[in-house]
Amino acid sequence: MFEFEASIPLSDKKHDILTVGELLIDMMTTEYDDSDQCDTYQKLFGGSPSNIALNVKNLGINPLVASAVGDDGLGRFLVNQLQQADIATNLIQSVDDSTSMVVITKSVATPIPIFYRGADYQLAYTSGLADAAINSKIVHFSCWPISRVPSRYTIESVMDTVRKHGILLGFDPNYHPMIWQKGESGIDYVKSMIGKVDIVKPSEDDAERLFGKASPERYLEHFLELGAKLVILTLGKEGAIVSNGKETIVFDSLATQVVDTTGAGDAFWSGFYAALVKGYPLKQALFLGFAVSAYKLKYTGAIVDLPHLEVIKEKYGL
Amino acid sequence: MFEFEASIPLSDKKHDILTVGELLIDMMTTEYDDSDQCDTYQKLFGGSPSNIALNVKNLGINPLVASAVGDDGLGRFLVNQLQQADIATNLIQSVDDSTSMVVITKSVATPIPIFYRGADYQLAYTSGLADAAINSKIVHFSCWPISRVPSRYTIESVMDTVRKHGILLGFDPNYHPMIWQKGESGIDYVKSMIGKVDIVKPSEDDAERLFGKASPERYLEHFLELGAKLVILTLGKEGAIVSNGKETIVFDSLATQVVDTTGAGDAFWSGFYAALVKGYPLKQALFLGFAVSAYKLKYTGAIVDLPHLEVIKEKYGL
Repeated sequence: MFEFEASIPLSDKKHDILTVGELLIDMMTTEYDDSDQCDTYQKLFGGSPSNIALNVKNLGINPLVASAVGDDGLGRFLVNQLQQADIATNLIQSVDDSTSMVVITKSVATPIPIFYRGADYQLAYTSGLADAAINSKIVHFSCWPISRVPSRYTIESVMDTVRKHGILLGFDPNYHPMIWQKGESGIDYVKSMIGKVDIVKPSEDDAERLFGKASPERYLEHFLELGAKLVILTLGKEGAIVSNGKETIVFDSLATQVVDTTGAGDAFWSGFYAALVKGYPLKQALFLGFAVSAYKLKYTGAIVDLPHLEVIKEKYGL
Repeated sequence: MFEFEASIPLSDKKHDILTVGELLIDMMTTEYDDSDQCDTYQKLFGGSPSNIALNVKNLGINPLVASAVGDDGLGRFLVNQLQQADIATNLIQSVDDSTSMVVITKSVATPIPIFYRGADYQLAYTSGLADAAINSKIVHFSCWPISRVPSRYTIESVMDTVRKHGILLGFDPNYHPMIWQKGESGIDYVKSMIGKVDIVKPSEDDAERLFGKASPERYLEHFLELGAKLVILTLGKEGAIVSNGKETIVFDSLATQVVDTTGAGDAFWSGFYAALVKGYPLKQALFLGFAVSAYKLKYTGAIVDLPHLEVIKEKYGL
């Protein structure tokens, strides 16, 4: 069990965190638009685990990214962005499919993304990936790679490997039926993952898609019943509630100014992971995650130029 | 056999031309860029048969478009563009996949497109489509719908239907391995179509991809040997050569100014089809096709605001 007042013991490994999964283009309208009128788009670095890798690098820990992109201009752009951030790209596979993309219309209502899955789910399990996994303190993935084969098998192999080596496993149950392969709802599969990982961070929307409409407390119970060891349920501007199965802690949002919510969840993961690696006690690591998220909310875009974790710690008086 | 000095007899039908196949987004960089640096894109109406439909409407004949788009903002944008051009959209199917897209980096060298096939190849054979096909003078399609199933089966059904009704069938053998479904080269399939249609218009690049490097005259022979009845081989700024199996005519390019070659082939098809529908003799219809192409070359973009065919006829002294 994870004690809130203790730090989570992490093995001494070469890499602080390995993110496995989607590295893709966010093709985003330059204007807010609720009627499909905006014709101009900007290509942006995207994919939640890849955003986390970029973020934690800024916060001061050492990430690795395993992903698949196409042998095309968009794939080269993504690899180049990682290189510019001084992140190793030896685990980026170049595959025979177009670099995955999400087209996003910025909207004052809920933006409705259009998914173009291509290269990302062609991610193969390689000896390099296995080697990186067992040499990392933390391994993280989201619902994207498990939503389709063959990348689902890759994640299953990674999980088999890391469980033998006492590596902390974080999973973002960001379930969405639109990314799932046809003919399978995906809900049962996602639920089957919950007990096999160490940490899950659902949003309230994720939880509703998995369990139907219920109270936040009931959502926590659902995840715990499925075997979750630590559940971080984020509630937007209401903050978050976190349970280790014995205790539940309520966190108020630390946000003082909300300019753009894009990437706020990734920012939380980033601050939280960076704090765990730096040895902070779990409860303080959670606070630091929420602080990084609050910092991000003041700026536009999924990726913002984060300072070192210690700077944010001081800024938020933690 | 098609005689160059005679017009092609067309049945008296409700619709002048039905295009069947890709209606998609061209997501094009706003700048010319040979190093993947341009981050800004513009969404444009695209898909060769759909461009032809828009063009012939301007030229003064009556088109119908059968296509499949996603139930998303990009699909709505495309349908809206057709409606604004006063083209019926009752044959546009809304399907459970993302609207297809081609990402294009404008380049001074050859632009390398990135293909995102989604909704387009989900096009189903419906009674509405069958009804439209047998009530059209001309039916046109490209390699896109035949490159994947189920749209391949739809085209096969359309062809079965129209052949029983004496409808003119035009096919663009714009073969490209990158659009073809995995595990099949597609070359044999494309070759098997040549003898089943009335008119093919390969470019020299298309011919090279199908037959390997050879002379234009040899390419013509290849298509004729496969059963082509009329082959229009376009040679870029060198014009075109056209054979009906008995006679070969060389056409010099009518272009006086080349600003952008995008959509020049579609513009040819458009002028040619419009002229056939208006009853011009075959040779003059070919001249009018090349004139419309030359007119398009003076402007940027796949779709330009074409005047009526008669205006272009007069402009080019035909």
